[in-house]
Amino acid sequence: MNIHEFYMKRAFEISKGGWGRTNPNPLVGAVIVKDGEIISEGFHEALGGAHAEVCAFQNATSDISGATIYVNLEPCSHYGRTPPCAKAIAESGIKEVVVAMVDPNPKVSGKGIQILKDANINVIVGVLEEEARRLNEIFIHYITKQLPFVIMKTAMTLDGKIASVTGDSRWISSEPSREYVHKIRNRVSSIMVGVNTIIKDNPSLTARPSSGDGIDPVRIVVDSRGRIPMDSRVINGDSNAGLILATTDRINKDKETQLLSRGVRIIKTIEKSGKVNLGELMRELYKLEIDSVLLEGGGNLNFSALEAGIVNKVMTFVSPKIIGGSSAVTPVGGEGIEEMKDAIALSDIRVEGFDRDVLIEGYIADE
Amino acid sequence: MNIHEFYMKRAFEISKGGWGRTNPNPLVGAVIVKDGEIISEGFHEALGGAHAEVCAFQNATSDISGATIYVNLEPCSHYGRTPPCAKAIAESGIKEVVVAMVDPNPKVSGKGIQILKDANINVIVGVLEEEARRLNEIFIHYITKQLPFVIMKTAMTLDGKIASVTGDSRWISSEPSREYVHKIRNRVSSIMVGVNTIIKDNPSLTARPSSGDGIDPVRIVVDSRGRIPMDSRVINGDSNAGLILATTDRINKDKETQLLSRGVRIIKTIEKSGKVNLGELMRELYKLEIDSVLLEGGGNLNFSALEAGIVNKVMTFVSPKIIGGSSAVTPVGGEGIEEMKDAIALSDIRVEGFDRDVLIEGYIADE
Repeated sequence: MNIHEFYMKRAFEISKGGWGRTNPNPLVGAVIVKDGEIISEGFHEALGGAHAEVCAFQNATSDISGATIYVNLEPCSHYGRTPPCAKAIAESGIKEVVVAMVDPNPKVSGKGIQILKDANINVIVGVLEEEARRLNEIFIHYITKQLPFVIMKTAMTLDGKIASVTGDSRWISSEPSREYVHKIRNRVSSIMVGVNTIIKDNPSLTARPSSGDGIDPVRIVVDSRGRIPMDSRVINGDSNAGLILATTDRINKDKETQLLSRGVRIIKTIEKSGKVNLGELMRELYKLEIDSVLLEGGGNLNFSALEAGIVNKVMTFVSPKIIGGSSAVTPVGGEGIEEMKDAIALSDIRVEGFDRDVLIEGYIADE
Repeated sequence: MNIHEFYMKRAFEISKGGWGRTNPNPLVGAVIVKDGEIISEGFHEALGGAHAEVCAFQNATSDISGATIYVNLEPCSHYGRTPPCAKAIAESGIKEVVVAMVDPNPKVSGKGIQILKDANINVIVGVLEEEARRLNEIFIHYITKQLPFVIMKTAMTLDGKIASVTGDSRWISSEPSREYVHKIRNRVSSIMVGVNTIIKDNPSLTARPSSGDGIDPVRIVVDSRGRIPMDSRVINGDSNAGLILATTDRINKDKETQLLSRGVRIIKTIEKSGKVNLGELMRELYKLEIDSVLLEGGGNLNFSALEAGIVNKVMTFVSPKIIGGSSAVTPVGGEGIEEMKDAIALSDIRVEGFDRDVLIEGYIADE
């Protein structure tokens, strides 16, 4: 690890202070280094708040002229919710800017760097770029595809079951795995399940990391016929995160009125063989600035989502226990793919341990 | 790693030269060290052949007196297929013996060490014992439980399927995973499948590691009613490894005669709800000096084996691809266990990568 990588890693680290609070903005951290010492740091704390670079300037207690600033994303060049950071840097006396990756937005990409270069600032681009892209995978997808980034999360036994033959699923995964899921729920802007999960388990779908500062994601229930019980926790619970019911014209008018009166937002899509059109739903969610969806579906919703091509990342917790049962439910059901050679392949596989559980993560290539 | 561990690891390494050839004997390697240098090595090459210690003596080209010998298992004390090694060491001029673990056979355990001590040789026991026990897990189980060590091996997709809805299973796992399975087949003394696998896939069940020196395991087919087709590869293939048909009184007499005339060994067990009694089968296999069984069953045989309590180790290859299908077959079927809290838990979990596949291994505690 060279010195640039060392400080860039620090920028990554502090950027995570905005975890769950900056969506649909990226996570950004900035580190100012002078004479081999960090003299200030800052990160983008929340949507609408100051950008990382500006925070770092504000936090500085000594003169930053002649210093180097490390930032994981190209400084912005446009007047958005805040004034452009590239300009602020150009006027700050900073002599060098080290950037992990250019802005993924094709409309502005490279413009921030140009402003800096025009101000005779030395600019280094591409330090730990891969790691930076991973850190902001949600933002990059959201900006470039104009769609939310969908993470399909499942937890199964070592013999591939998400519940026993009787439907019992508590608990498949370990305490540390479940804690990690709450951290992810805190990170994303929405969580999506099928109505059968609501009917069967009546979950609250909130983010409850042990740190206690979880921000609940918007809850999305896929329910083509409007079968959601009015006494469900997602409607009556104490979360103020809002509920979106994704449905079709098959929902009963009265039920719709009742739901609307309880503050539920209803998104109707054109029916697709009796089901919600998930592709259309994603386009609607994008319009609502929902940059990410954690899909915690049952086997059928998961298969529909994969079939619709909306899933970008898969997170599978494998718990080292065996439950058996030829009729027990597996993570992905539906009609299935007929031939193994046509299976949906994941790439960039990563493996992590959570107590005795093994988390396998991978990405589905864009079409 | 201290110096004793360093040489002991070398003993482990060379012991593997006997991989697949020593069963039901253990893997044993011996390293002779004098003045900080390895002056000779030997390993138990095959059942009935010289023991590791004796091989090391035979291979020595310089004087071994005053040397230290490292051996992963307590030198034997009894006249079996070969004379006792402890005695050979005592007469050799060796001044120190370092042993990873005592002999697991309660009848002789500690006796070899006693012979050495009586000869005023310095004996150190327990160096890398855990690793040594793992190396000879098959032998230890076989000797102490008087049963074969059963390894249930499965390969599934990331959504828990061992085949697609149409039954297609070629290939779930990667080339390196399949190569590793052939190495394991070469290691064990038998491989067991259900008759449905024979009818559906007609496999040859041979060991075909790329090194080309595979030794085929005995093939065992569980077939309560004797439905095995006479033109199956396991009967007609070019392997001379032998075939055992595990069946019950429900087999047709003519079929039995036909099979016997083709050199098939038939083991009949008392019926257990129409099925082969797997516990009884294991006791019969032990009598045949079969120390290990690689179970490559379908979902039903796997569940029966787990239910019967005969499985000791589970090896699950998880391939990062998704096939879907609510009717696709999973690694363990049958009736299943009703409540998640009663699931069969594995311990001592290890994870290894094979190309993009993830191998998860664990052990089932003895009752």
